[in-house]
Amino acid sequence: MPQTRPNNLNDLFEDTLKDIYFAEKQILRALPKMAQAASSPPLREAFENHRQETEGHVERLTQIFEKLGKPAKGKTCDAIMGIIDESKEIMEKYKGADALDAGLAASGQAVEHYEMARYGTLKTWATQLGMADAAKLLDQTLQEEKAADELLTRIATADINKKAA
Amino acid sequence: MPQTRPNNLNDLFEDTLKDIYFAEKQILRALPKMAQAASSPPLREAFENHRQETEGHVERLTQIFEKLGKPAKGKTCDAIMGIIDESKEIMEKYKGADALDAGLAASGQAVEHYEMARYGTLKTWATQLGMADAAKLLDQTLQEEKAADELLTRIATADINKKAA
Repeated sequence: MPQTRPNNLNDLFEDTLKDIYFAEKQILRALPKMAQAASSPPLREAFENHRQETEGHVERLTQIFEKLGKPAKGKTCDAIMGIIDESKEIMEKYKGADALDAGLAASGQAVEHYEMARYGTLKTWATQLGMADAAKLLDQTLQEEKAADELLTRIATADINKKAA
Repeated sequence: MPQTRPNNLNDLFEDTLKDIYFAEKQILRALPKMAQAASSPPLREAFENHRQETEGHVERLTQIFEKLGKPAKGKTCDAIMGIIDESKEIMEKYKGADALDAGLAASGQAVEHYEMARYGTLKTWATQLGMADAAKLLDQTLQEEKAADELLTRIATADINKKAA
């Protein structure tokens, strides 16, 4: 019997959903460590708040898996592993240093940008696949990732880097 | 003698410059493979054109290293390695499939978003460090990464996914 190969946008949508589901779970574990390492109160708060939002993102993904009639399941996402590894490296290398907060904010923005890319893509595909409800859920998360990125930009520009420069 | 530890924004700026320098070199090698795998002419052309732009990005980074009086040197960037590994996985898994182009465009957008995060950060830091010339060069590249991402969005929305859906 020939094996069924993944072929169409439905398969790709499901694969990418698993990728971002895995990524969100990793981010849930990384954010408290980033918050703990941050010395600037606004930066710490931004990471803590975004951790709470991230729980909602996982919940929305679970709803989309349900709509597909599939179990919510992740698959290893090398990209987020690499981004989080870089953030760990910054935390070790700049521990106790003036520039640590600037490095943490930059790591957070790399995380947000990865998510913005994936949610933008998934939203487009959901629309093309006629899944308007899923597209709406994905757009809600996309907007929250964008807002988190913009907040980190404001914090980085206004506050923490002055100390480090 | 106590070891000098990296501490301030200058150190972090230089580290992050090495990170994106390494990333750009990897992207230079990945884009021709992505162009070759693409079946949609606009997508192939977008990858080919962005490869040429990427050569200019490397050149601008070299100029900034010169301004710092440092040799242009990369350091392994786990994030871009992970992003490119995911793109290779898509190319293998969806080889010959209807959804391959959609997956390639999505991979390209993940690459662009990583670069947007890094160039946005580096531009902010260059400004804070009083390096107006470097900030200008970094902004030029940032704008080209944004334009490349927007072009991929237009291609993905208008063209290639219709075939795959």
